[in-house]
Amino acid sequence: MFLKLFYKALHKIPFKEIKGGINSVPGFISAGINSGLRKVKPDLGLIISDTKCVGAAVFTKNIVKAAPVIYSMKYINKPISAVIINSANANACTGEKGLEDTYTVASYVAQKLNLKTSNVLVFSTGVIGEYLPVKKIVSGIDKLTDIIKDGGNNNITKAILTTDKVEKEVSIEFKLKGKKIRIAGIAKGSGMIAPNMATMLAFIVSNIVIEKSLLKKLFKTAVENSFNLITVDGDMSTNDSVLFLTNSKAENNPIKESDKLEKEIFYNMLLYVMKKLARMIVEDGEGATKLIKIKVENASDKKSARKIAFKIANSSLVKTAVYGSDANWGRILAAAGSAGVKFNPDKVIIKFGNHILYNGEPVKFSEKKLKQYLDKKEINITVDLKKGKYSAEVLTSDLTEEYIKINSKYRT
Amino acid sequence: MFLKLFYKALHKIPFKEIKGGINSVPGFISAGINSGLRKVKPDLGLIISDTKCVGAAVFTKNIVKAAPVIYSMKYINKPISAVIINSANANACTGEKGLEDTYTVASYVAQKLNLKTSNVLVFSTGVIGEYLPVKKIVSGIDKLTDIIKDGGNNNITKAILTTDKVEKEVSIEFKLKGKKIRIAGIAKGSGMIAPNMATMLAFIVSNIVIEKSLLKKLFKTAVENSFNLITVDGDMSTNDSVLFLTNSKAENNPIKESDKLEKEIFYNMLLYVMKKLARMIVEDGEGATKLIKIKVENASDKKSARKIAFKIANSSLVKTAVYGSDANWGRILAAAGSAGVKFNPDKVIIKFGNHILYNGEPVKFSEKKLKQYLDKKEINITVDLKKGKYSAEVLTSDLTEEYIKINSKYRT
Repeated sequence: MFLKLFYKALHKIPFKEIKGGINSVPGFISAGINSGLRKVKPDLGLIISDTKCVGAAVFTKNIVKAAPVIYSMKYINKPISAVIINSANANACTGEKGLEDTYTVASYVAQKLNLKTSNVLVFSTGVIGEYLPVKKIVSGIDKLTDIIKDGGNNNITKAILTTDKVEKEVSIEFKLKGKKIRIAGIAKGSGMIAPNMATMLAFIVSNIVIEKSLLKKLFKTAVENSFNLITVDGDMSTNDSVLFLTNSKAENNPIKESDKLEKEIFYNMLLYVMKKLARMIVEDGEGATKLIKIKVENASDKKSARKIAFKIANSSLVKTAVYGSDANWGRILAAAGSAGVKFNPDKVIIKFGNHILYNGEPVKFSEKKLKQYLDKKEINITVDLKKGKYSAEVLTSDLTEEYIKINSKYRT
Repeated sequence: MFLKLFYKALHKIPFKEIKGGINSVPGFISAGINSGLRKVKPDLGLIISDTKCVGAAVFTKNIVKAAPVIYSMKYINKPISAVIINSANANACTGEKGLEDTYTVASYVAQKLNLKTSNVLVFSTGVIGEYLPVKKIVSGIDKLTDIIKDGGNNNITKAILTTDKVEKEVSIEFKLKGKKIRIAGIAKGSGMIAPNMATMLAFIVSNIVIEKSLLKKLFKTAVENSFNLITVDGDMSTNDSVLFLTNSKAENNPIKESDKLEKEIFYNMLLYVMKKLARMIVEDGEGATKLIKIKVENASDKKSARKIAFKIANSSLVKTAVYGSDANWGRILAAAGSAGVKFNPDKVIIKFGNHILYNGEPVKFSEKKLKQYLDKKEINITVDLKKGKYSAEVLTSDLTEEYIKINSKYRT
């Protein structure tokens, strides 16, 4: 179990959060600008590394993949030096032309920075089904490369946002045998958030030295245990991607499969960054007023635990009840029962925070106390199946009128 | 194919819609009253038949089954004479006591009507997790049996409603070799509507004579092709049930497996009643302002077609876009792509009504015309996968602020 060792490791190896985001990692510079895709807000970002990076990524499992996803999936295993990201347009469902546009953007970045096109990754997010305004982006790249020559700016966290209200950035520093390691990540949400990625982009960079195959394995597991345990509306997007790049500049001994401690430290540091970003995404979910943590305990296997947790987390009825501070625990049991997993309802325990509301049968509770609890910003719901020993924890947000408002007029 | 023969049969065998609901079928009397479970509205209904009925039913597939569902599943194959239904309380998640309460209600009806308990079915709908107010129901049964002795009343359609705004009733009459057959159905929605039943109750009665095993088979298929093709919010309830009873009074020759024409006529008449009730449920979905018909065409198999159609129909992003009259077809393709079914997005055609919006790539369209189309009360969305020859059609409603309002304060 990683998590127990995580805390053990954290006692031994202190880490701290630092400021500066992407730019805090030696060798990386980033910048964000407005290129005219949106009226005023930044809409185009560039990350560059002064040396070639090793990459790992997880992409949307949606059959319908946006052009930049198809493109970046192709080049993820090449040495990477630059990442260009635009918001306001997903370049999805745009056929052949969409893919050509992505290549045009990538090769223009490559040309400006003296790279091969394959050294450049491309990501887009925003409205689906409209062609990319390539001209605007190309002029934007001119501006961005100039800014980067001057040391970059702090606007990339803004440039990647769509309906998000809040910038999402986490940077940490820790040491491995005296070598200073940094990991910095940025992300965007905030609707179309569901497991197997969402309309979600996250970019995480580091200077750690680690074997490529091990990196890929640990990265995938960390995504599984962070970004893939959140949901806002159960919709999976065409553009979701989590990217990790390291320029290997930290000069630590390359971490190998056999380096048990170092491996665990890195995994848990990475997980820390990812979980924090994932949580920020849910907190900033479209229209969200509350964070809801759904914990399913004592299931007969991990898959069942996750299935039930997600069924509850995606239930519009559960989410609206929490929004209204209504302790309608029956909807939780009903949602759990519809997950297609067998369990005995007469053994189940349901808790809101520490308040037991159901214990094989309804438990009398104080509506006033529950209302007080449900008026909080963070709600913990526990469903104990009393069956096996596996558990799962999924983060979601409440469902509000604001979500409807945002999404009923998204394109206009 | 039933449906083609259906229309053929309908030309040969005319049918008509009639008034009177349950009470229009010879031998059945129903009544509804307020028993104090709700403030003013009717909340308790009773259907009785003067002779024993043959029954068929489909119950929720939710692991968490309400007490009356557990009870009625046990007795559905017995000869049935009475059905008692309450709203305002689902008697779900109420453990042993819930089941005892159901037996108390059933046996009180039986005692009043001189029946065995097993001749009485019980259904409940409403809030989950509260004990049934048995005393009120028992006094209500006294009132109901008195009213039924006097010929019943027309209030059962009201008594079974929860958040529904509209009563749902369909009655038809047709002839089989000179014998007059009637089928009458009532139903309630209106949230927690998803395939495999929903918080949905439907009661259909008839006087047709038909072999029991054949009845069960045709009934199940008809449910599959009507009530199981609708969704409001993707939530499956603990109480969903569709019940069919016939008192076999029509004196037609008992329909057997080998009676091809009679079988088809009955199936299609039953399907007509069920589809009409199912459509009424969606139209009256919680907060719904529009009916959305999702048609997936040319899938490689029926299951895939249904899977994709339901994924689109349950997408909050699609439903809010239709609510806002926003022709955001990209969300439809994105939802389709996340159904876990393989297809080639470059071949897909997406239409809103007759307007093609995507044909392997975006098609230019008049926003004004699309807005006009989407302002209608009934929206047809077609996704042609160009892959095989199977199709599915699912009905759903839009997602509005009103849904949030209704469900955030349901218990209060």
